[in-house]
Amino acid sequence: MERALAVDLGSHKGERVYLQGWVHTIRKLGEVNFLIVRDRSGLAQVVMSSADMKPLAGLQSETVVRVEGEVVAAPSAPRGYELHNNTVTVISPVTEPLPFPINKKEITANQSVFLDHAVIGLRGPRERAVLNLSAGIMRGFRETLNQRGFTEIQTPKIVAAATESGANVFAIDYFGQTAYLAQSPQFYKQIMVGVFERVYEVGPVFRAEPHETIRHLNEYVSLDVEFGFIDDHFTVMALLTDLLRGILAHLAVAHVDDIKLLGARLPVVTDNVPHIHFHDAQQMLTDRFGVTDAIGEPDLSPQHERLLGQWAQNQFGSDYLFVTGYPMIKRPFYTHPDRARPEYSNSFDLLFRGTELVTGGQRLHLYPDYVAAAQARGYDLKPFETYFETFKYGMPPHGGFAIGLERFVMQLLELDNVRMATMFPRTLNRLTP
Amino acid sequence: MERALAVDLGSHKGERVYLQGWVHTIRKLGEVNFLIVRDRSGLAQVVMSSADMKPLAGLQSETVVRVEGEVVAAPSAPRGYELHNNTVTVISPVTEPLPFPINKKEITANQSVFLDHAVIGLRGPRERAVLNLSAGIMRGFRETLNQRGFTEIQTPKIVAAATESGANVFAIDYFGQTAYLAQSPQFYKQIMVGVFERVYEVGPVFRAEPHETIRHLNEYVSLDVEFGFIDDHFTVMALLTDLLRGILAHLAVAHVDDIKLLGARLPVVTDNVPHIHFHDAQQMLTDRFGVTDAIGEPDLSPQHERLLGQWAQNQFGSDYLFVTGYPMIKRPFYTHPDRARPEYSNSFDLLFRGTELVTGGQRLHLYPDYVAAAQARGYDLKPFETYFETFKYGMPPHGGFAIGLERFVMQLLELDNVRMATMFPRTLNRLTP
Repeated sequence: MERALAVDLGSHKGERVYLQGWVHTIRKLGEVNFLIVRDRSGLAQVVMSSADMKPLAGLQSETVVRVEGEVVAAPSAPRGYELHNNTVTVISPVTEPLPFPINKKEITANQSVFLDHAVIGLRGPRERAVLNLSAGIMRGFRETLNQRGFTEIQTPKIVAAATESGANVFAIDYFGQTAYLAQSPQFYKQIMVGVFERVYEVGPVFRAEPHETIRHLNEYVSLDVEFGFIDDHFTVMALLTDLLRGILAHLAVAHVDDIKLLGARLPVVTDNVPHIHFHDAQQMLTDRFGVTDAIGEPDLSPQHERLLGQWAQNQFGSDYLFVTGYPMIKRPFYTHPDRARPEYSNSFDLLFRGTELVTGGQRLHLYPDYVAAAQARGYDLKPFETYFETFKYGMPPHGGFAIGLERFVMQLLELDNVRMATMFPRTLNRLTP
Repeated sequence: MERALAVDLGSHKGERVYLQGWVHTIRKLGEVNFLIVRDRSGLAQVVMSSADMKPLAGLQSETVVRVEGEVVAAPSAPRGYELHNNTVTVISPVTEPLPFPINKKEITANQSVFLDHAVIGLRGPRERAVLNLSAGIMRGFRETLNQRGFTEIQTPKIVAAATESGANVFAIDYFGQTAYLAQSPQFYKQIMVGVFERVYEVGPVFRAEPHETIRHLNEYVSLDVEFGFIDDHFTVMALLTDLLRGILAHLAVAHVDDIKLLGARLPVVTDNVPHIHFHDAQQMLTDRFGVTDAIGEPDLSPQHERLLGQWAQNQFGSDYLFVTGYPMIKRPFYTHPDRARPEYSNSFDLLFRGTELVTGGQRLHLYPDYVAAAQARGYDLKPFETYFETFKYGMPPHGGFAIGLERFVMQLLELDNVRMATMFPRTLNRLTP
């Protein structure tokens, strides 16, 4: 006899099979007990007499069991089949009650209690679906890029110098020397454009930002892309649009159940995702939305982003809006300036439902420009030596972007906190589990 | 006019196209110059008169160019086509000679010089092929596991407590608190078996081992697998065998050129990969190979592994050999003992061409067993609290393994140092580039 999965019961109609999984719920209706078993494929209904239930006496939900029985059609059961005439064997008993129930429609524990017991809480069907969608985003990301000639890279996370400004890095003792955790694979992905032209990386990044917000984590997964032979940041925006389409198409096909369970609204990527220049965005916020704190600022506030997101929705029916040309002063030194208006950059943010999801742009590609840009900001050139060597020896015009995986999940599912979009969040006050 | 890739010239016969890439080599034969341009797809030959060459006067190899010309059949050119009647435009000039040539059959710079300038050295066709194969291994790994119902996870790299023994961990200052870099995702992948049953992770792990060897890195990429509802470690070994077959099949199809360029011998995974118990291996080493330092030791030495690898090759024609049942004393506390002989474990190493490539086994799955095992080793239970909670609330028999990506590449390609199997190695004395 082979193990059957909950989802496959229908293909074994009339046969005896066995399931393995966790006791998700037991419901008693008079003399009949409905045992709901959860395995990796989903939930299965097992109909048990009181005598059948004996092995489970005194045990709690999450007990791991083997249930052998006969597959019977039952319109009211999940996917139309259930098990009858069963034998239950306990594999791993659970004797203590759970810290909170995970078999209700939603887990009602408060967030801090939930996170303390995430090792159990993540077994909840909704929580599991969130993480499954997260896996689907990574898969859609890689498959779309693989089809477009990109090569996957894995770059070091322990680095000798801070990637960008030197602020907000975690320091490590590396055999008596101070090293740092990489804030992004930025330098390495650019270097690897010299090797493969088109690269991507999915990996952890570390930001020692000493504040707690609903949309920041101190360690998160960054989906990084970088590629060469571009015209300018519009080439990068076109790839990003294409990539988002690829990811969402993958989710729509491979994650139907997760999307349904979570009631997620998959966004539509319109034929031409609208874009607006930073300067024009500030002007419009002021003239049209009566905002008084935009013009003169080098960045947009979260409230500005929300207003712009609503505008994109109303005006273009788009969940996405590119804001281009952020002031150079707010962008890292390797950002390529707009040749026509050098105070603005060839960079962009992608707003998704009114919140920044992706940052990207064109980078400098000529060695003298790197030296000049670093010097103009008063940086010591020494830590950049090997990075700059890349540009001394021939680099094409190139650019790229980074998508924060958890932020993407959060906004896709309209979660109210990025902590609920990851398995074990790392924040200012949370280092466990 | 669309950009053509080197590999696609043949599909544009008779047309004018343009290439973009790096000047790999220039060979002068009398009046004719052969400009070899490298792009992400490979090398293309461009036939140039001396007049055509003017834009490249004084410039070095690795200069980035655009070459427009006519595609002409030429049996002696790579893949049978070359460009004639060309116009070269310099995109990014290189004016300084490279630290070492990267356009010869092999890069002859010594390893330390090579690694200092890896940002350029990795552009060499062999070096590039090594990293491309590495990407292929990751892809084959994920695709094989996706087909078998596994879910990808991304677990925290900043952790509150050392994963295993507490030795050899890098410490981090986490907002004034001491945290550590994860030595492996072991605890997290087990926890996630409770959620998804079958999980994998591809990500960095960190080992603060203060010594330099040809087969160790202080940061490397671990291909981790963990899954539930196993019988014992033989179920795990069967999955690993199946996975290796999947990875190698992917390489054989998708990496023909890399394998050819590198002269790699892809191993054959025989129908039944041979296995030998640790106890019997020591006995055989002693009785048959005259080894005097095996019996009584709790582990195999590298020399023992080499001898066993040769034996597997001679006896079974297998590049692989499982050694099972390592002594409990040498395995982490969460290892499941062999019920019949509790001094031995339900664990294994997989030797590949006589060197350990994979370590794995069955884990404990019952809460009381965890408490007892940790106490027997004198561990403080406090740091394990959330990890142990997983087992309190129902875990099936489970197991898994970890493959070191760089080690796999090294042994697959028979490289003499693991540093040549990764882009930017981190070792005791190397933290850059």
